[in-house]
Order: sequence, then C-alpha cells, then structure tokens
Amino acid sequence: MYKLVLVRHGESEWNRENRFTGWTDVDLSEKGEKEAAMAGELLKKEGYAFDIAFTSVLTRANRTLNLILDKMGLSWIPVVKNWRLNERHYGSLQGLNKADTAAKYGDDQVKIWRRAYDIAPPPLAEDDERYPGRDPRYAGLDKKDLPLTECLKDTVKRAIPFWNDEIAPAIKSGKKVIVAAHGNSLRALVKYLDGIGDDEIVNLNIPTGVPLVYELDGDLKPVKHYYLGDAAAVEAAMAAVAAQGKSKK
Amino acid sequence: MYKLVLVRHGESEWNRENRFTGWTDVDLSEKGEKEAAMAGELLKKEGYAFDIAFTSVLTRANRTLNLILDKMGLSWIPVVKNWRLNERHYGSLQGLNKADTAAKYGDDQVKIWRRAYDIAPPPLAEDDERYPGRDPRYAGLDKKDLPLTECLKDTVKRAIPFWNDEIAPAIKSGKKVIVAAHGNSLRALVKYLDGIGDDEIVNLNIPTGVPLVYELDGDLKPVKHYYLGDAAAVEAAMAAVAAQGKSKK
Repeated sequence: MYKLVLVRHGESEWNRENRFTGWTDVDLSEKGEKEAAMAGELLKKEGYAFDIAFTSVLTRANRTLNLILDKMGLSWIPVVKNWRLNERHYGSLQGLNKADTAAKYGDDQVKIWRRAYDIAPPPLAEDDERYPGRDPRYAGLDKKDLPLTECLKDTVKRAIPFWNDEIAPAIKSGKKVIVAAHGNSLRALVKYLDGIGDDEIVNLNIPTGVPLVYELDGDLKPVKHYYLGDAAAVEAAMAAVAAQGKSKK
Repeated sequence: MYKLVLVRHGESEWNRENRFTGWTDVDLSEKGEKEAAMAGELLKKEGYAFDIAFTSVLTRANRTLNLILDKMGLSWIPVVKNWRLNERHYGSLQGLNKADTAAKYGDDQVKIWRRAYDIAPPPLAEDDERYPGRDPRYAGLDKKDLPLTECLKDTVKRAIPFWNDEIAPAIKSGKKVIVAAHGNSLRALVKYLDGIGDDEIVNLNIPTGVPLVYELDGDLKPVKHYYLGDAAAVEAAMAAVAAQGKSKK
C-alpha cells in the first residue's frame, strides 16, 4: 500500500485576475503563498513526510512546493522538475481574461475550451512572443514536443509518460512522493489513475493548495483518495474553480 | 572562459547565536533570509543567469538558493542537492557556543579547531543523538562516509570528488552554474581551485550571502575572482566571520 500526495499550486496572480495562464510563468499571489504554507503545515501536522518531490518548470508550482517543503523541514529532499507536469498550454487564449473571453465567445464556447477533452483553444503562431520555443527552459526539447495549444487529451499524452518513467518507479521503490503541479496536469494524472472517462473528466475540479491524498495498491491502482483539511472549505474551493470560466452576467 | 558563482548561505539562527553548527540542520535567521534575497536581487541586477544549481542537503543552503532563484525568476532550473557540499562536520562541538568554548579551552585551541587544516574537533560517539546515521537524509550513504568529526582536509576530500564528477562537467558543457553552500565546503572548493596551501587557507574567510564570482579558463583554472556588491560591506562581513571564534574578553 502506497500513499501519494498531489497538490495544485496556490492561487497565482493570474488566477486572481481570472486570466488564462497555461504556460505563462506567473508567480503566486500573496494568498497563494499563504495557501502553500498552510498546505505544508497541514501535511506536517498530519504526520506526512516525503523522500522525493516532482514538479513542473513553472514558478508557481516550484514555489508552492518549496513553501510546503520549508514548512515540513524537508527543503533538502530531491526535487525533480519537468515540463511534462506543466499546466495545459492554453494556446492563443493565454493572457486573456476568462470572463471577457466568455462575454465575447459565449460561456459554452469557453467551457468547451476549458473542459472538452479533445478540443484545444486556437493555437499560437510560432512567431508569437508567447511561443515556448523562445523560452530558455524549453531549449532542450524537441520541436515536436513544444505545444502551440493543448486540449486535455494532449496534456494526458505528455504527462503520463512522465508518470510511468519517473513517478511510478519512485513510488514502487518505496519512496514517499509529493507532486506539486497544476489544475490540468493533475487532472491528467487523476484521470489516468482512476480511469475516469473522457466525458466525465469535464466535471472534475481540483482546488488550489489543498493536499489530495491517493492510497494506491501494489499495482498503483487507487484504493481511495481524499483531500486533507476542512471538508467544507475544500468544497467551496472546488466550486470556485468550476465558476471561473463564466462571464459576469 | 567560464563564470562560476559561489554563495555562502545567509546568516543562520546559530550563526546569530554564535554556536558551532556543522551538520546541525538549523534554518536561516530573518537577517539570513534578507541576505539571500539581496544576493538574488544583486545577481539579477548584474545580469547573471544560471542553467543549473548545486547545493548541500542542509536547509540553510537550500533556502538561500531558493530565495536567490526566486528573486531571479529562476525557480524552475534544476537543483542538485548533495551531502558532499555540506558544512564541515564539527564533531562534538556541534551546538556549543563559540565564545563559551573559547573561554573554556582558550582562543588558540578554538582557532585550531576552526581553522587548522588537518586537526579535527573531538568526534561524536555513534550513540550520540547528533550522529548523522540517525538522519533520514543520509540513509543512502555508506557508513564509512558518515563523519563523526571533520577537519577541513576531510571536507576537501569529500567535496572535491563532487566538484570533479558533477560541477566541473556541468561548467565544461557550457552550463552557467551557481553553488550555494557553506563556509567550509566553499573554502574547500576555493582552496582546490586557487591551489591555496594548507597553511594559507586558515586566513580565508567567506562572508554570508555575498556572491563570489570565479572566472575560469578552458581548463577551469581561475583567471580572477571577485565579490559582487559593495566592497566595504564585504570587507566588514569577512572580518566579522574571522572574529566569531574569539572569547568575549
């Protein structure tokens, strides 16, 4: 029996401004820093410890992880950072306000872009300044791996190999693992672990900064999962995520 | 021509209390956090960037590095943590006040323990609660690598293989490197890089939180080195380190 902890980064400056973020490297808001520190305190209080951590190459996830590990006295554990745990790339929506976009294209279209499993937002052009090929953190990647946009299916396709190659072997070797990542890279992992269908995943929302514990059997099949902390607060946080894409009517 | 940046962690809680720290995992003081953040701001202002970072498995160095990288917008770069960059192990002096120890054993004896190249402080017993074998972060080490005490010569012996195996190849591959470590593991590196004699190294003091830049030729031989920032402030910081071991007469 293994335990795995997943944490979505705390509120970012663009979560707060209700903008599509994707691979844009925005930092945590002050509230997000507090959420992360609280997650660390909660994990410590509940007796959790970790041997290794996995995270994306985006600042908001890296800093969430560091704040958690600082609170737990675990700043010294190995941290593996990989682009495959990045947020879903939001294509040319990156930087746009979610409510403005919904007002322009309609709530339904935005819900499709946000939540449809296999429909991606309009792609970036390669000469767009937001193109990942301009960012030194992706300099080592094959061009074919650099997204211009992604649907969740694309995110699953690039995240699961990292699960299989790096995270799953670490868990099976007996290491206690924490993954600090993003709304959609975590939905990709959860979809895979729980075998959630392409149509059902649309309704799954993961709140920021709340540790999500998976208990896994010897084959890494989930036995159960639960959020740590106050159940009512977690419910409210999940509902807030679901409401973000709505226009302000 | 390569550039390498070395940084000693900011002031720790035990630097402030003037206690021998060694492998004891004390955190940064508030002043130490500020020093680290300032080092990051300075490096950013001076146009530095890094592709990879190396640090010890001690919280004060890890957090110094994270604070620097946060300020530089580089939280996403790979960080390699290794015990070979740890502070010198101070044996059974760990936890004792430096001035009290000097009052008891004399300034000369404490200067020998602090600075003699090949005379180590009295060793820990294996049943001492401070024995590194009790700490999960060293669980993977061979028992012969677990120190009971160290002189600087011992620190050199375990730090230089890490330089040769990990840091030097990274630099030669063209990666821009920062090393965030400790007074004595950095003295070990500097002794090796500059070919400083066993008797001369006693007079070298590295201040906390000030980036030390080495310019290296193609064979990684130092061409020159310098501290970043205000020269007078750096002098004062180095003198403060040298004075720490004196009893309060």
